[in-house]
Amino acid sequence: MPLPASVTSGQGEFAIDGQFTVGFKGYTEARLERARSRFLDVLIRETGIPFSREAAPAEAKFAIEVKGPSEAIEKLGEDESYRLTVAPEGVKLTAANPLGALHGLQTFLQLVRITPHGFTVPAVTIDDKPRFAWRGLMIDSGRHFIPIPVIERNLDAMEAVKLNVFHWHLSDDQGFRVESKVFPLLQLKGSGGQFYTQEEIRHIVAYARDRGIRVVPEFDMPAHAQSWFAGYPNLASGKGPYEPAKQWGVLDAAMDPTRESTFQFLNLFIGEMTGLFPDAYFHVGGDECNGKEWDANPAIQEFKKKHELKDNAALQAYFTARVQKLVASHHRIMEGWDEVLQPDTPKDVVIQSWRGRDSLLDAARRGYRGLLSNGYYIDLNQPASEHYLVDPLEGIADKLTPEQTASILGGEATIWSEFVTGETIDSRVWPRTAAIAERFWSPATVRDVDSMYARMELEAQRLQDYGITPKATTEEMLDRMSGETNPEALRVLARVVEPPKGYAREDIHTYGTESPLNRLVDAVPPESETAREFHAICVRIAAGKAMPEDWQSARDWLVLWLDNDAKLEPTLARSDLTAELVPVSKSLEQTAEIGLSALDSLRGGKAISFGEQKQALAALAEAEKPQAVLLQMVAPSVELLVKAEKVQQ
Amino acid sequence: MPLPASVTSGQGEFAIDGQFTVGFKGYTEARLERARSRFLDVLIRETGIPFSREAAPAEAKFAIEVKGPSEAIEKLGEDESYRLTVAPEGVKLTAANPLGALHGLQTFLQLVRITPHGFTVPAVTIDDKPRFAWRGLMIDSGRHFIPIPVIERNLDAMEAVKLNVFHWHLSDDQGFRVESKVFPLLQLKGSGGQFYTQEEIRHIVAYARDRGIRVVPEFDMPAHAQSWFAGYPNLASGKGPYEPAKQWGVLDAAMDPTRESTFQFLNLFIGEMTGLFPDAYFHVGGDECNGKEWDANPAIQEFKKKHELKDNAALQAYFTARVQKLVASHHRIMEGWDEVLQPDTPKDVVIQSWRGRDSLLDAARRGYRGLLSNGYYIDLNQPASEHYLVDPLEGIADKLTPEQTASILGGEATIWSEFVTGETIDSRVWPRTAAIAERFWSPATVRDVDSMYARMELEAQRLQDYGITPKATTEEMLDRMSGETNPEALRVLARVVEPPKGYAREDIHTYGTESPLNRLVDAVPPESETAREFHAICVRIAAGKAMPEDWQSARDWLVLWLDNDAKLEPTLARSDLTAELVPVSKSLEQTAEIGLSALDSLRGGKAISFGEQKQALAALAEAEKPQAVLLQMVAPSVELLVKAEKVQQ
Repeated sequence: MPLPASVTSGQGEFAIDGQFTVGFKGYTEARLERARSRFLDVLIRETGIPFSREAAPAEAKFAIEVKGPSEAIEKLGEDESYRLTVAPEGVKLTAANPLGALHGLQTFLQLVRITPHGFTVPAVTIDDKPRFAWRGLMIDSGRHFIPIPVIERNLDAMEAVKLNVFHWHLSDDQGFRVESKVFPLLQLKGSGGQFYTQEEIRHIVAYARDRGIRVVPEFDMPAHAQSWFAGYPNLASGKGPYEPAKQWGVLDAAMDPTRESTFQFLNLFIGEMTGLFPDAYFHVGGDECNGKEWDANPAIQEFKKKHELKDNAALQAYFTARVQKLVASHHRIMEGWDEVLQPDTPKDVVIQSWRGRDSLLDAARRGYRGLLSNGYYIDLNQPASEHYLVDPLEGIADKLTPEQTASILGGEATIWSEFVTGETIDSRVWPRTAAIAERFWSPATVRDVDSMYARMELEAQRLQDYGITPKATTEEMLDRMSGETNPEALRVLARVVEPPKGYAREDIHTYGTESPLNRLVDAVPPESETAREFHAICVRIAAGKAMPEDWQSARDWLVLWLDNDAKLEPTLARSDLTAELVPVSKSLEQTAEIGLSALDSLRGGKAISFGEQKQALAALAEAEKPQAVLLQMVAPSVELLVKAEKVQQ
Repeated sequence: MPLPASVTSGQGEFAIDGQFTVGFKGYTEARLERARSRFLDVLIRETGIPFSREAAPAEAKFAIEVKGPSEAIEKLGEDESYRLTVAPEGVKLTAANPLGALHGLQTFLQLVRITPHGFTVPAVTIDDKPRFAWRGLMIDSGRHFIPIPVIERNLDAMEAVKLNVFHWHLSDDQGFRVESKVFPLLQLKGSGGQFYTQEEIRHIVAYARDRGIRVVPEFDMPAHAQSWFAGYPNLASGKGPYEPAKQWGVLDAAMDPTRESTFQFLNLFIGEMTGLFPDAYFHVGGDECNGKEWDANPAIQEFKKKHELKDNAALQAYFTARVQKLVASHHRIMEGWDEVLQPDTPKDVVIQSWRGRDSLLDAARRGYRGLLSNGYYIDLNQPASEHYLVDPLEGIADKLTPEQTASILGGEATIWSEFVTGETIDSRVWPRTAAIAERFWSPATVRDVDSMYARMELEAQRLQDYGITPKATTEEMLDRMSGETNPEALRVLARVVEPPKGYAREDIHTYGTESPLNRLVDAVPPESETAREFHAICVRIAAGKAMPEDWQSARDWLVLWLDNDAKLEPTLARSDLTAELVPVSKSLEQTAEIGLSALDSLRGGKAISFGEQKQALAALAEAEKPQAVLLQMVAPSVELLVKAEKVQQ
């Protein structure tokens, strides 16, 4: 995962034993040597075989042939293709430059499997290249600070699934996260002590480059910038004083676009930051400026009149145009969210669409390049299948010229961090982002959801070898919640609940930077494997297409859930973190009871009364409502069973 | 864990909420600020509450009062005492110097618990100080290289259980692991590319100091030094050429003690290394020199005659005396294993006993200081209870004067790395080393094994917050072994097997540096919790003291094991790493069958024939033999049941 562009199976397989070696023929460089070392690290973790770490021999079993170097600073659209040929005698990987070689190494690691005669890779020839040139993951370090080791392992996982852009959202109302030496109050007053030093930034940029990943920094402006104003209140349109925000949402604070001092500040600031981030693109945000501070400021109103700016959108367009000139003067191409697209926006600006494909279509028609993030908001806890089926070109390709179509560069998964911390981010990002990575890399025709889920689960297991261990984190959080009680019953419950989808969580409670994210909703993954598996069984039973073992499996699950509430009781009584789960556990018990009864009727061909069915469905509808900010995922499947029951006339 | 010297319970409890802060009254230093930050990191992981990371306020809920600094280089025997007072209103920690404060912070973290009204710490006054001044963990980086992040997290865990000496075994026959700038061929030819740079060494020394831990380096000589000779064959007594050894065991290669050039080399080498390791003690090994290379070298035989050295022990004594002078000339106190103790050994040399308490007694009587490692060899996979009950002073204290008794400084757990890698080391070291740490720290009267196990299991869970996650590693290794098959049945088997004890593993197979350590024996912890639990049930049933739920628990376990072989079959058939488990799984099935039958007889008061019993016991004896380098731990418990059955006369 992602599936290659072209795969041709061969005869036999290549055996991986203690004599396995990797060597370079032709061009090499320090980055490739490090890639080889990293490749061996992962292979050691995959197999447990202690391969020699000595320098590569001239005639290695795995020969890498790279034609020449890639660009000194990775460029959008560089050749990323590779050919990987695996035969029983040996492995050959060829690529035009190191980027393709990096991808080919990852493909090989995905092909390793344990067999009765040891670890092997099936004989195969793979010709591969990406569908889109811009395949990104955005991490929001602004709302919650995400520690460097977490960033590193996410870059490792990005490399594993061939993503090539790390979009780093580095400032927001709640925090400014980069050390500025020119304006040190940005981090000193705007970060609560949680920011990246310039040394750390340089380290991450180099770390990403080693993995074939560009780093595009984002400093959101003119809104989503309250944290800046704690140290530099003169940048703001309001009176202040300001502090980094503690609540989430669209806030009023915004930069003052009418003062020259604002642009003088931004000029120096952008100059400093482009010194840290060498990528050709520089993201200035531009989203969700509500204009309230502008409306409340007489000087800004005066300025609008004087310059015939008819509304706040026009004022923001003026601001954006000025900022774009600054960005260009520092030899960078500006990128921004939908809102930066205005009548006079220069044509090289890249539009990242959080609003949807319509904005992307509009931008492409007007000659702009764009990328899609709408549909890839992985913080919203939707199933991987939903993200997977979103295609940047779907429904718009036929409305564009080939040239306009080519201007749609790809897309980015985005993890906004209102509800994630360094502890929980991995389970929100992975493995679902692997499915999105496949959308960006593989041919458009690769769309089979069942195949995706099967491969994604294997990839989830494999990502453990890259340090991405969300299952272990879930276990640790359940241990924490259980205190000294046995966590087993809590595990059973945890496996069938999911966080609410979309923005529902915010509607249920109010949260902010000080809210602990240590409840069951934070511990469980966005998508329950158990619920998906049980659902598939219920679909077959309800459709009269049950496999022989389905009846017993369904019964085993339902009995487990029926008996769980009593077992969970000691934990619920002992811990503040679990007390809220009492109704969720009861609802699971009741759902299981309804399910077992339905299973009996279906098996025996017995009919139930209309009233009984109605009562059962009403109870299930209740169970499907969020409780303790959780969705209990068994009820919808049991609903299928109940609806399939015969009803007495 | 370790239990404090004195605990007085108070009334009520201290609540940990989002407003929790930690501040210093009086003396502070950068190390204490970092300790505060680290303390908050762990507390955040323990609770999931995002405490503010801002600088501490003047009036904090948790006030730390340190009188003054500790020594610039941590000294053996420094004051490590502290007083921790927890009351509903606040927490006070006082200590003479930062070392005590570090310990007190860890004690507080151990007291945090989840309750129905949130995270709290019970009101308590603790006056605490260690029983022994030298409380160590030795890690062998020579046989298998142990990566820096693994060393770091083991230092974190050492701090958590108040160990204060990291003894780093840095060279052996199989590898030389430190960058030398004076003799670079040591690492270039002696490490297979796996060594610590000087920068990394300095980092670890500082990292340890931050945690109140001294770092004592060990460079083993004159034997266990074959890896040195790959780059510097003139140091050796044999003709060479040499390579780092690939097999384990006591090898013949040894330094040539008769050439002045050997001591010139060692003088420069020790000079360079003492520049890296500031601790007052310097360990030169000295163990297991078999003298074969000396015997085979005519020049050495000549030297012995000329200097009237009657045997190789005398020659080694000569070597040791010369090395001791070099060590002393670099302002360090020499430490060595039992063998360095010779008639003329200077009195300040510290003897580390791997042979047993008799050597320690002998050394103490002769006026030497010593520490015990015999009994604390955690690589031998013995139960924690065995290590726990070994006391450095037991059986020898009454044979010594108080002054001699005081010369027994403490002890060290040792993890020799023939059978551990960076992947598996955590499960070998933890949590059992926490029990040993309690032996070194707590009063001698603390010896209750049941209490130890209960607390050790909690500590194991807590050590996850320090990055020590052996359970997760076991799961990942089982996933690897299972390939694409469901790992659940393998988990069931894994929970009731243990590695063989002592040196039995080496007797079963031959291993070396190239042996993969990826089998079930490597994946499972040294001690099976499930087997211990099941054993306790069987003991009660066999003794006629079963608790009401014991019968059902025993039956549930036995049924699970009886049914497991069939479920495991697909995995065993698919993977080379599991194929060897076929007889182990069958043996578990058969054991369970015998157990269920015995359970029925015991419950029903039925008698069995003598022949039946004999047959059952014979089958169990077979099941108790190592298979696939594993001990199946259910059989001994079932044996208890069978032996408790009534036999027809």
